[in-house]
Amino acid sequence: MRLLVINANTSDIVTEKVAAQARRSASPGTEIVPVTGTFGARVIATRAELAMGEHSTIVLAARHAEGCDAVVVAVSYDTGVRAARELLPVPVVGMTEAALHTACMLGGRMGIILFGRRVLPLYQELVASYGLSSRIAGWRALESTAAYGRGTHDELDREIERTACDLVERDGAEVVVLTGAVMAGVPARVQGAVPVPVVDCIDAAVRQAELLAQLKLPKPTAGSYALPPPRELVDVDHAIAARLGRGA
Amino acid sequence: MRLLVINANTSDIVTEKVAAQARRSASPGTEIVPVTGTFGARVIATRAELAMGEHSTIVLAARHAEGCDAVVVAVSYDTGVRAARELLPVPVVGMTEAALHTACMLGGRMGIILFGRRVLPLYQELVASYGLSSRIAGWRALESTAAYGRGTHDELDREIERTACDLVERDGAEVVVLTGAVMAGVPARVQGAVPVPVVDCIDAAVRQAELLAQLKLPKPTAGSYALPPPRELVDVDHAIAARLGRGA
Amino acid sequence: MRLLVINANTSDIVTEKVAAQARRSASPGTEIVPVTGTFGARVIATRAELAMGEHSTIVLAARHAEGCDAVVVAVSYDTGVRAARELLPVPVVGMTEAALHTACMLGGRMGIILFGRRVLPLYQELVASYGLSSRIAGWRALESTAAYGRGTHDELDREIERTACDLVERDGAEVVVLTGAVMAGVPARVQGAVPVPVVDCIDAAVRQAELLAQLKLPKPTAGSYALPPPRELVDVDHAIAARLGRGA
Amino acid sequence: MRLLVINANTSDIVTEKVAAQARRSASPGTEIVPVTGTFGARVIATRAELAMGEHSTIVLAARHAEGCDAVVVAVSYDTGVRAARELLPVPVVGMTEAALHTACMLGGRMGIILFGRRVLPLYQELVASYGLSSRIAGWRALESTAAYGRGTHDELDREIERTACDLVERDGAEVVVLTGAVMAGVPARVQGAVPVPVVDCIDAAVRQAELLAQLKLPKPTAGSYALPPPRELVDVDHAIAARLGRGA
Amino acid sequence: MRLLVINANTSDIVTEKVAAQARRSASPGTEIVPVTGTFGARVIATRAELAMGEHSTIVLAARHAEGCDAVVVAVSYDTGVRAARELLPVPVVGMTEAALHTACMLGGRMGIILFGRRVLPLYQELVASYGLSSRIAGWRALESTAAYGRGTHDELDREIERTACDLVERDGAEVVVLTGAVMAGVPARVQGAVPVPVVDCIDAAVRQAELLAQLKLPKPTAGSYALPPPRELVDVDHAIAARLGRGA
Amino acid sequence: MRLLVINANTSDIVTEKVAAQARRSASPGTEIVPVTGTFGARVIATRAELAMGEHSTIVLAARHAEGCDAVVVAVSYDTGVRAARELLPVPVVGMTEAALHTACMLGGRMGIILFGRRVLPLYQELVASYGLSSRIAGWRALESTAAYGRGTHDELDREIERTACDLVERDGAEVVVLTGAVMAGVPARVQGAVPVPVVDCIDAAVRQAELLAQLKLPKPTAGSYALPPPRELVDVDHAIAARLGRGA
Repeated sequence: MRLLVINANTSDIVTEKVAAQARRSASPGTEIVPVTGTFGARVIATRAELAMGEHSTIVLAARHAEGCDAVVVAVSYDTGVRAARELLPVPVVGMTEAALHTACMLGGRMGIILFGRRVLPLYQELVASYGLSSRIAGWRALESTAAYGRGTHDELDREIERTACDLVERDGAEVVVLTGAVMAGVPARVQGAVPVPVVDCIDAAVRQAELLAQLKLPKPTAGSYALPPPRELVDVDHAIAARLGRGA
Repeated sequence: MRLLVINANTSDIVTEKVAAQARRSASPGTEIVPVTGTFGARVIATRAELAMGEHSTIVLAARHAEGCDAVVVAVSYDTGVRAARELLPVPVVGMTEAALHTACMLGGRMGIILFGRRVLPLYQELVASYGLSSRIAGWRALESTAAYGRGTHDELDREIERTACDLVERDGAEVVVLTGAVMAGVPARVQGAVPVPVVDCIDAAVRQAELLAQLKLPKPTAGSYALPPPRELVDVDHAIAARLGRGA
Repeated sequence: MRLLVINANTSDIVTEKVAAQARRSASPGTEIVPVTGTFGARVIATRAELAMGEHSTIVLAARHAEGCDAVVVAVSYDTGVRAARELLPVPVVGMTEAALHTACMLGGRMGIILFGRRVLPLYQELVASYGLSSRIAGWRALESTAAYGRGTHDELDREIERTACDLVERDGAEVVVLTGAVMAGVPARVQGAVPVPVVDCIDAAVRQAELLAQLKLPKPTAGSYALPPPRELVDVDHAIAARLGRGA
Repeated sequence: MRLLVINANTSDIVTEKVAAQARRSASPGTEIVPVTGTFGARVIATRAELAMGEHSTIVLAARHAEGCDAVVVAVSYDTGVRAARELLPVPVVGMTEAALHTACMLGGRMGIILFGRRVLPLYQELVASYGLSSRIAGWRALESTAAYGRGTHDELDREIERTACDLVERDGAEVVVLTGAVMAGVPARVQGAVPVPVVDCIDAAVRQAELLAQLKLPKPTAGSYALPPPRELVDVDHAIAARLGRGA
Repeated sequence: MRLLVINANTSDIVTEKVAAQARRSASPGTEIVPVTGTFGARVIATRAELAMGEHSTIVLAARHAEGCDAVVVAVSYDTGVRAARELLPVPVVGMTEAALHTACMLGGRMGIILFGRRVLPLYQELVASYGLSSRIAGWRALESTAAYGRGTHDELDREIERTACDLVERDGAEVVVLTGAVMAGVPARVQGAVPVPVVDCIDAAVRQAELLAQLKLPKPTAGSYALPPPRELVDVDHAIAARLGRGA
Repeated sequence: MRLLVINANTSDIVTEKVAAQARRSASPGTEIVPVTGTFGARVIATRAELAMGEHSTIVLAARHAEGCDAVVVAVSYDTGVRAARELLPVPVVGMTEAALHTACMLGGRMGIILFGRRVLPLYQELVASYGLSSRIAGWRALESTAAYGRGTHDELDREIERTACDLVERDGAEVVVLTGAVMAGVPARVQGAVPVPVVDCIDAAVRQAELLAQLKLPKPTAGSYALPPPRELVDVDHAIAARLGRGA
């Protein structure tokens, strides 16, 4: 199986961390095909960057999905997931979406750790858009950017552990989801200090993408995720035009 | 006052219809500045087109907002509204959002008429994202594309009248919202045959945009709608870079 | 345009403060017609007073709406708004309702400041009745009654500033709504110290009332806001009887 | 025990029907004290009449509650219940509220039968205000006014039976609530033809009022249902003033 | 009247405390028939014990309901209530369910006191299953097990008083519900120190069970609470088989 | 890997059908260990049977989980899942829960097909308990019992196809979930006639159970899914006692 892993951030370091975890998570025989955004934010963390990221994701999806069996969107706002799911003939799953649904099968209400108070509303809107707000026990925003360097970050790991434990103790979280593409691989390091499961979004997403591919369900031909009849488009990426446009 | 009216669709006919209604709705002394998308779908109606439209809206916003007092996004999925609201120093309002909130002050639950069953989920997701799902009495999807030609369309007008009346009679709608940028100006033509108010989204949006501008409230400097500190961006539109980027 | 501004409280000081702000908010050429309740509480703040206030509002509405183009109910529980909206041929808007819908177009979730812990449930019930509970980031109740005197109140202004900032910092409010008819005009004084927009309910309501009037939408003839067929009434105010009663 | 039964409608026929059922429902030794509104609508069925009814209910409550152990508000919009609950030292329960909570203990989701499509939104708003919307399987509005005459009404009874059965068959209702003060006593007549329990609101309310009285719980001294400190009032009913006002 | 009171816990001390309060709450002439679980947990407080308790409740219900007019399930998770309600021809009510609905008629939002943080999610799931989550002001979990001894427990009573007051002051609770079968009788002891009503679940349940029996509503013959056609069962308790099984 | 597949129904034919599909769905090297209930209903379809099934599931779980890496509960009400998840050290997933979460990653809102109108409320309660009600587009109940025989059932397959298409066309379902353990394997037969993915609950559950096992997350030691300290139990199954009881 080939899994396309889309990082719509224009930052190789994030792609590297994601790809490393994706390879650890993938089944034997699954090839990970990581791609990085060519335009937009280094690290998507504003609403305007999200808007560009939506576009970037489908450009990458249209260009690189050929020959892939499923797609993981490795931006933690699940940027462009719905659009790519419509556009491609194979399953597409967002990293946060995958983690949330996986967490739902592991316990009751979950705690969410994210980076930057500023983006808390973006995650709350995302979770609400999945209809899962009632499954959230609590939220915590950390401010560290240590993860964007290479290597590990012991101090941040300790902060994540303390935060996860606090979510368990004060908010009654029964599972913890650690958001952020750059956090790929971190849950395994902190799990030992946390009394409930800590879900790694990339780990969950790679496995859920494989699962969805293995179900071998057909692309819908009705509804908002079917491929539409050829569309009239202006000045769009050639790969998108080839999939969506008139004359395709 | 100058109002920027963004049509992220790449179709002049829609811009024309929107601009005509916007000028009818605007206060004396308000100048309407209509702009049309330069890339993407002629008429946004798929999730992939929506993703491109998000980007298109903020490109247009960044390029043309200078000197404007407020912005109307004249795409009926309110495409890019949240991103433009973050990016710009002036109020930004989506046409559907404006109509929904206006309708809430006119009656109880409202009926929504839209075009194309395929996009019904997109509208339902939009309304849910505003927290307004409980205010909806019923939905109706029409399939006509007659509005995309020039001039009026009597047959479609009659269908809209029948549909609005059906929403009133069977679903108990106390207000009707007619979605679609291309529908600008139509509510006034059908109102006479409908026993409850029919809201014109462009009419509502232009007036709400003026209202928000007149409140003279400051741009937030905290939260997800504040302008962020300068961001590291790659290959983005110069106007976006100028507003959002490092070195701006 | 003539705007009827109904203060169902029987306190001239509140009417004065409301009228002063209403005149600042109104468009040139709009005449503000303020009226004060003739029976009931000096300042509505209990459920029993609210019940009398419902009645008082429609008495005032029936007596004074003639010749007016729209009505603002300047009681912050939006007391009697739904009843007056049914009774009158012109738009009726509540001050809190107007502020809430306006705030929805300015940011994400909002913080609400109110006066008196005792009335917190009344506001929560009001917001829930509009279907907007999910848009609230947090609530704060202050206990001061300083605003019921004439002139300004620096100490209370400082407390409002601190409270608004606290809603931003701890609850993530992206807009703040300051409730209370007597608070008309205060947001402009405190805005400078608060990093997100602070909405003045009277400012919002006057402008929304003008907007609704300018839409020139017809009075519904179906649903719960249509004028009913003449009703059999006993010993009611002559102005209500004239509008609603048999023989009217 | 003495139970005050408040009919804020100004129609003796409704009071008679309510009182007759109340006496059938009351425990041996319970005295029913029925009172009728002195001003307002013959039969409350519009929003303006509801506003007057709120006032009327508390006037009746204040005048007649002395010596009573509990109060039933026998208007099916539970008009003024919250206000009377605040004002009086004894339990107050609305007829619809009582039926809804009773029905919740009898099955899963319930069907609601009401009279007049126009008032459907009023009932939906009422149920939502109790937080019980998710417990409703379906709604049916009948248009008959036959019940406002004396004696029984076989044809209407048959229509109610058919409607209740339809709620069971098509909407999956597991209990049926028949709203309307004038419907007191009807459920017993139609129950034989309906395969699920049909709740009589007056029956439920009288019994719940007795139950609440027997709990002998104290009047709250905190929160929005406590009696407030003496209030400054203008030109209010002497009985209200005596309970609520300054100098009381 | 005879009321079956089912304690599915296998602990006589709990049954004793429940029965004592039930007898205080019952009307003159009502006989209380208390029964205790024969298998399962001494005190149900885990999900696995709840699963056994579901079974235990219906075994007790099937064996002992003969000749009874209504049933109270005296396990505070309302364990097996829905199953027993289906199985038996008479009304069945859970102690927590009864308290919640009763509390709804006494005030606005309520505070819930429970024992053991571990079971907080179980109560939250229970309340959500009744559709009543929006009526909850706050939750408090105490850790004491003092109530499982005989006699009173002054220290725990004081802690309950402080906790109830804290729910009123900080969370705005307008009623307090004290969960736990073993707490039967305690609310009367602490009420004096708490400014809002404290509901005793057994008190509420016994009275609601009597009320439901007095309504004399028929057992449903449609829906999920009707008795099904005879079922094919394997190795089940003879009393359950007699009511539910083929050949019954 | 070894997967325990629990059929708490006491019917071998259901176990056979489930096991056959489970073996088709399992990864190479995964051993399926199917077990059948020893007491209770042949086919769980009433609330009383559900109560016994809760108990049956944990008896089977406690007896047979040794040496297994994960557990699937193959009863479509996910009977006993939460209890087994608490009791066992390995992941436990319900067949319907797995299908619902999987479907969420495949499209927007889903249609649910179930068997027997009587059980519709049970499924609605189940979905609500997962917080997923807003993800449901529509429900359909079929009455056929043809699936309980051996072999295939062409006529029922055709009815399922028609029903699925109807959910797509009228309710806008973008995915369809076919509930019922006995339906294992049917979705693959009908998929060709349905324009959106049809999820096989056993297929989804087996794969999700494998996925959860592969995540190698620890058993929680806090919250309602942790194993409690040894419990005092009376006359319970020896395997449950060994895992949960004092002296274990």
